[in-house]
Formats: sequence, C-alpha cells, structure tokens
Amino acid sequence: MRIGIVGYGNLGRGVEFAVKQNPDVDLVAVFTRRSPETLKINSDAKVVSVNDIENWKDKIDVLILCGGSATDLPVQTPKYAKMFNVIDSFDTHAKIPEHFENVDKAAKESGKVAIISVGWDPGLFSLNRMYANAILPEGNDYTFWGKGVSQGHSDAIRRIEGVKDAKQYTIPVEKALQSVKNCENPTLSTREKHTRECFVVAEEGADKARIEKEIVTMPNYFADYDTTVHFITEEELKKNHSGIPHGGFVIRTGKTGNGTNDHVIEYSLKLDSNPEFTSSVLVAYARAAFKLYNEGQKGCKTVFDIAPAYLSPKSGEELRKTML
Amino acid sequence: MRIGIVGYGNLGRGVEFAVKQNPDVDLVAVFTRRSPETLKINSDAKVVSVNDIENWKDKIDVLILCGGSATDLPVQTPKYAKMFNVIDSFDTHAKIPEHFENVDKAAKESGKVAIISVGWDPGLFSLNRMYANAILPEGNDYTFWGKGVSQGHSDAIRRIEGVKDAKQYTIPVEKALQSVKNCENPTLSTREKHTRECFVVAEEGADKARIEKEIVTMPNYFADYDTTVHFITEEELKKNHSGIPHGGFVIRTGKTGNGTNDHVIEYSLKLDSNPEFTSSVLVAYARAAFKLYNEGQKGCKTVFDIAPAYLSPKSGEELRKTML
Repeated sequence: MRIGIVGYGNLGRGVEFAVKQNPDVDLVAVFTRRSPETLKINSDAKVVSVNDIENWKDKIDVLILCGGSATDLPVQTPKYAKMFNVIDSFDTHAKIPEHFENVDKAAKESGKVAIISVGWDPGLFSLNRMYANAILPEGNDYTFWGKGVSQGHSDAIRRIEGVKDAKQYTIPVEKALQSVKNCENPTLSTREKHTRECFVVAEEGADKARIEKEIVTMPNYFADYDTTVHFITEEELKKNHSGIPHGGFVIRTGKTGNGTNDHVIEYSLKLDSNPEFTSSVLVAYARAAFKLYNEGQKGCKTVFDIAPAYLSPKSGEELRKTML
Repeated sequence: MRIGIVGYGNLGRGVEFAVKQNPDVDLVAVFTRRSPETLKINSDAKVVSVNDIENWKDKIDVLILCGGSATDLPVQTPKYAKMFNVIDSFDTHAKIPEHFENVDKAAKESGKVAIISVGWDPGLFSLNRMYANAILPEGNDYTFWGKGVSQGHSDAIRRIEGVKDAKQYTIPVEKALQSVKNCENPTLSTREKHTRECFVVAEEGADKARIEKEIVTMPNYFADYDTTVHFITEEELKKNHSGIPHGGFVIRTGKTGNGTNDHVIEYSLKLDSNPEFTSSVLVAYARAAFKLYNEGQKGCKTVFDIAPAYLSPKSGEELRKTML
C-alpha cells in the first residue's frame, strides 16, 4: 500500500515513523506547502510541492492528511477526497457532522473512500463509548483526559504578557475517577473532574503574581478548574517538559438483570507521545480505507463504520486463530 | 426485532433481562429441551419445545443460542443456522476455526447470518487485542482474568471426595499487573499472573487436610498456581459467594517513533454477573446480525467482521453527533 502525507509537522513525522513499523505499507511522498528543497525528512520518500499533488493520483493508494482541524482539514479533506482515498484526524467534535457531509459528497463523486476523525479522541475513545453504550443501554458515560499536555492551553498561557514559554498538563482527579470506577455514578462538575498544572517560564523582570492571576482567572481555559502555576527556568522546561504525553479514560458503568448487578467497562490510554500514537491509528485506518476501496466502496466513513478486521494486515483466518 | 432463545440457563435468563433494556428488541419464544409446561420464565414470551423450532422460522429474526460450548453449540449453531440468523458465545478458543467452518457452510447455504464466539472473552477482549495489535505492531500482549468465579475450577473442586460445595476465584497478581502497566514488558509464568482462591464446604467428618492437598496439587487446574483454600460453612458460601462476578484486563504495550516512546492501551471489565453481561453483548450482536441479514449478507462472522455501528440502535448520523 502506497501512502502519501500532506503536512509534515508532529503528526506527519509520526506517520513516517509508523509506516516503518508496518511492512505492508510504503511511504512514497510527503506533500508540503513549503519549498520542497527546504524540507528534510526521515525517510527516502519524495518531498513534493502540494501544488503538484494531482500528478500523484495514480501513484498513491491512501493520502493521510496531517493538517490542523481549525483551518486545514475543512478545506483539504473534501478537496483531496476528489482525487485520493483519504484519512484525517479532524477533531472539532461539534463540526464533525458538517465535515462528514462535505467529505462524503466529494468522495462519492470521485468513487474514493474517506475516513474522518481518526485518532484516539475522536477515534478509539469514540469506539469504546459506542460499544459500551450498545452493550449496557442503562448506564452512565465518563471520559477523563490526561495526564497529558494540552497544546491549546499551553498556547493560551504563552499569549500572556511576560510569558516566554509554557506547558500545561490536564490531570484527572483521582477521587472522581475512583468514584466512577466504584459505580457511585457521581454527577461531576468541570472542577471535580480535572485539574490543570502549568509550568511557566517568565521573561526577566516580569510580574509573576500578575501572570499567575491572569492564568488562573482566564475564562473557559482555567477559571473553572483548580489550577496550579509553577515558575521554572527555560532549561527546566526543556529538560523536564519537552515531551507531548497524553491519554485518558473512557468508562461506562451500567446495570443489568433486575437492577442489582453493576458492570464497569473501562478503556484507558497512557501515551508518551500523543502525535506518534495518533499517527499509528491513522496508518491502521489507511489500511482499512485501501481494503474498502478495493472492495468497491466509496464515500465518507468514521471509525463506527469500519469492521475491526480491516485495520489488520492479518487474514480473517489468522485473526480467528490467534486473537479471538 | 424478534428474538428467540435456545436454552434457559443463566445465559438464557440474562438474554431475557437484556431484551427488556432494549426497546427495539422483543423476545418472542424460549425453546427448551425440557417439557415446556415445566419451565417458568420471567417474561410473556412463549415457551416452546425445541422439537417444534422449525415452525418458528418466519416468526423469529435472530435466534440466540445459550447452550454450552462443550457439546451444545458445536451441534446447535450449524443446525439452526440452516433456519435462522443465529448468535452464539462459543468459547473453546482452540476449536473456533473448526466451528467457524461448520457454521459458515450452513449459513451460506441458507442465506442467513451467523455470529459466533460473542461475549467478552472471546468477544470484547478479542476486539481489544485486535485493535491494539493493528495500532501498535511492535509490542506485547497481556490478558489477565478476574477477580472472578471460574465455573470449571469450582466444578473440579466439587468432584473431590468429601466436598459438598465449592467456589473458586481467579485473581490477577497485582504486582504483575503493575509491571505490565509500567511498560516493563515482563515475561510472566502462569504462577506469576494469577492466584486461585477456593471456598470449600466439606462434608461432615471429611478429612480437610486431604481435600486441601488434593486441590492444590491438582494438575492443570491448580498445581501451577499459588492456591489458597478456605473451609467455610454452607451458610457462608450461600451468603458471601452466591454471585458470578468476573472480569479482567487486556493490555497491549508498544513503542513508536525511534523506539523511545512507550504506549499502554488497556481495556478492563469489572462484572457483577458474568452471564448477564455476556447476554447483553449477545443482544447487541443480535441487532447487528439482523441488520446485516437485511442488507443481504450471509455466512458466519465474528466480532472482527462487524462494524461497530451495527451494534447500536442509533443511526449513523446520531452516532456521529453524540458519540464521535
């Protein structure tokens, strides 16, 4: 299976690594908006200007779109679905229905397969919410995120005057998590579910008390949470906080029988690298897209529409023998 | 969707309960090998002799087979797949390929859909093994069972002379579980993964020392484990050990990138009632079988072959809006 990547940031580099772990997958081209000659990559794939992408229509089986959900993917996914089988990790939950419609129209016209919102949330977490709801119709859903780095919240801190750099961790509240796992079915406020921990490098001479106050009172981002702020040096930030870990928990608790039996279905991820893990999910679903296309399917799909076996390089017979 | 049940033990009763939690599902008949008039059930479904099952061919959309894997299902599933869409929970892992072939042949001839080995292991655990392997190709798999009641091991104890009744719990070793979750990739012996705890009611005057020795040295069942035996009264057994809880953990750890980033994918179940939970899974997959049949599909499937959305009563649009 021949893969192309559009966009060479953390996610694109992650796909490049993931391809190397999958012998049935080849990376043939990385498409970029930059001048191709300025881009150094970690494989022997071709680096190509995104303007020349149409020439690759017959040389790529699945195109993995590694841009952002805010402005890149709403344009790119429908556009490239007109020429390629495509996968994206569109993660603006509220806009998924609209994105789906746009991509579905394009992919149906071209006879290609598109799979959107692939990753872990949306993605694997969504799958687990859905399976658990179908199995335990009477119950409660809980999703906790972290411990992990929120890029959006880190950026928000960096925009404060006097802040040189910053990293923000979202952390699930252990007490809330335990209450959920104990089937106590708590109603949890935003504050009760997660705390936020910030590591901030201040400019020399900056007013740290003001910076801290601006962070903890920032509406939407921090005001509704118990937030702690640590001022550290640039060296400490680089040494101890340069990773992009993340993860979380999807839990459904529910009752069966005459209402006396409790059940807990829990799915959790603990990821050293959020983008590398997401990339690994993208590559597995690229395999699925290619198989579906070869079966004559077309249009937009999500993780809900893909039978698990399509993700695997193994045959149905092997899967039944080794994994069932 | 009209459901029929074959066999009215713990699993059959569980399906009866689960149907009540799913407004789109009706239980129309329970088929039994006993005299129908002797069987009291918990719903207003008809109780019918299994000998008359052919008369129900057009009155049932999916038949859920609730017999045992040792002798019932190898015969029943291919037999009834000739007349009905069927679901079973066949759980003899080593014989799944053979069972699949037999059922597939029958279902393809009749044009029906059969889904085998549905439940949590095989079933939901298999799904999670498969997804995790497709996403992290370089890694290690671990499955732990419990804390839960092993019916087979409890039965083995009951066959010992002087034992009136017994209940056996399989318990994951916490230290091993933690080592796995910490990405230490341990190689674990049988003894290191699980312990076994037995609650035994001895006959009056029985030699307890001999019973204990017979248990802990029993080949295959107990000899390879650290086993503890507690002698208790019949009343205590009834009061504290009459439930059928179970559960377990499926964990895959793996590396991405240049090999420095670890990831942990964990799925766990904590179930107050093993049969009621299994029944809930069976009903969700019965819904999938019916949808697939209505689309014109036929033959034998497993959980690997079923797109998640088929399990849900919600439309694709609703699922994307509420769960993705």
